[in-house]
Amino acid sequence: MLSNNQQKKISKLVYKKYRLKMGLFVAEGEKVVNELLNSDYDYESIFSTNKTNENFFNLSIDEMNKISFLKTPSSILGVFKIPKNTSKIDFKNTIIAVDSVKDPGNLGAIIRLCDWFGIKNIICSRDSVECYNPKVIQSTMGSIARVSCVYLDLLTFLKKSKNKVYGTFLNEKSIYKCSLEKSGVYVFGNESKGISNSIHKYIDEKISIPYFNQRNKPDSLNIANASAIILSEIFR
Amino acid sequence: MLSNNQQKKISKLVYKKYRLKMGLFVAEGEKVVNELLNSDYDYESIFSTNKTNENFFNLSIDEMNKISFLKTPSSILGVFKIPKNTSKIDFKNTIIAVDSVKDPGNLGAIIRLCDWFGIKNIICSRDSVECYNPKVIQSTMGSIARVSCVYLDLLTFLKKSKNKVYGTFLNEKSIYKCSLEKSGVYVFGNESKGISNSIHKYIDEKISIPYFNQRNKPDSLNIANASAIILSEIFR
Repeated sequence: MLSNNQQKKISKLVYKKYRLKMGLFVAEGEKVVNELLNSDYDYESIFSTNKTNENFFNLSIDEMNKISFLKTPSSILGVFKIPKNTSKIDFKNTIIAVDSVKDPGNLGAIIRLCDWFGIKNIICSRDSVECYNPKVIQSTMGSIARVSCVYLDLLTFLKKSKNKVYGTFLNEKSIYKCSLEKSGVYVFGNESKGISNSIHKYIDEKISIPYFNQRNKPDSLNIANASAIILSEIFR
Repeated sequence: MLSNNQQKKISKLVYKKYRLKMGLFVAEGEKVVNELLNSDYDYESIFSTNKTNENFFNLSIDEMNKISFLKTPSSILGVFKIPKNTSKIDFKNTIIAVDSVKDPGNLGAIIRLCDWFGIKNIICSRDSVECYNPKVIQSTMGSIARVSCVYLDLLTFLKKSKNKVYGTFLNEKSIYKCSLEKSGVYVFGNESKGISNSIHKYIDEKISIPYFNQRNKPDSLNIANASAIILSEIFR
């Protein structure tokens, strides 16, 4: 059974404003929900169309369709609590910092990548897409259960950083020719504008993934693919 | 002005069946359309809301909304011809082969990546998503103008391959510990099922991207990110 109140509440969680106000977010699908249930995250309520647990709300498929944010709803939807204490930043490990990344799929893909490489947190500029956005959650494929995003003033963070700050640009020093420190901070810029001008002066080393296309210059790599290549190069 | 016939025709091009029947596909947005206009592709018709060329059809924004496949239509939409002669496969360069890749965004991202690395064609199993699918076209960001997809029977192709065939799996030999030949054929499998069983015996070397997460094993990398890492490792 789905109450009107539950339905209204969940529909609001598509908006950042209400997620932050209520301290809740939505995750859907067996994989993502199960990974969150097996993590430190607490849930507020779980809705399922194939009742498997007495603590879950059993819904009809029609009811699930009403609350799901997906085009093709899955059999399970969870409302989870946004953790109150932001996790401590692990300065001994590689730090990925994103500057004004707007696409939820890109942030989700970076979270999934960081999970693969054992990186616990990602620094996000305050104007980056929020990590509890339902599209980010879905594209992490459950990795959000293990990687947290810390939102802060990126300029101040980089200014104070004791670790070497690398910035990814076009046509700078090849990543294959420089030493990429494991304890470095690696900054990735906005999908179309790159790294903000105000931050340039706090970048210790400008790096680039060289292109291998002799005939013409493709103008950019997708930010998630660029992060994949750079993380591989650091950890290989 | 948009005629009813034009509108009907374009709306059909969202379906593979009609794309193949009519030999046409749709591309949208300044960047993608311009890259195609500057390439070997021929266009059938171009529709624009800010008339810039006497050969273009000038549309109102309302008319553009009627034909666009995008949530937020852009100022330009092009109907292009699917080339009749499939390009020759360049066996001297790296070959990327995808086996039953279904997600348009993933194939688009791989096309964009191949462009970066100067790879001209991608081998696709016949059940992979079609490269003229509008979502593939959009996610190539114009790289479709330079990279072509060749659809064929992948099993037969691999069986006859004179070049070494690598397959990407989980928990096999680390890509950082084997020699990745530049003239190799690199096979990437379906997003959830991996490489088809029927193909396994034609894989000369099974390779894996090792995970660096000590605490737990994330179960997979996104196929586009995996390709990014492997291409970087081949070309570095």
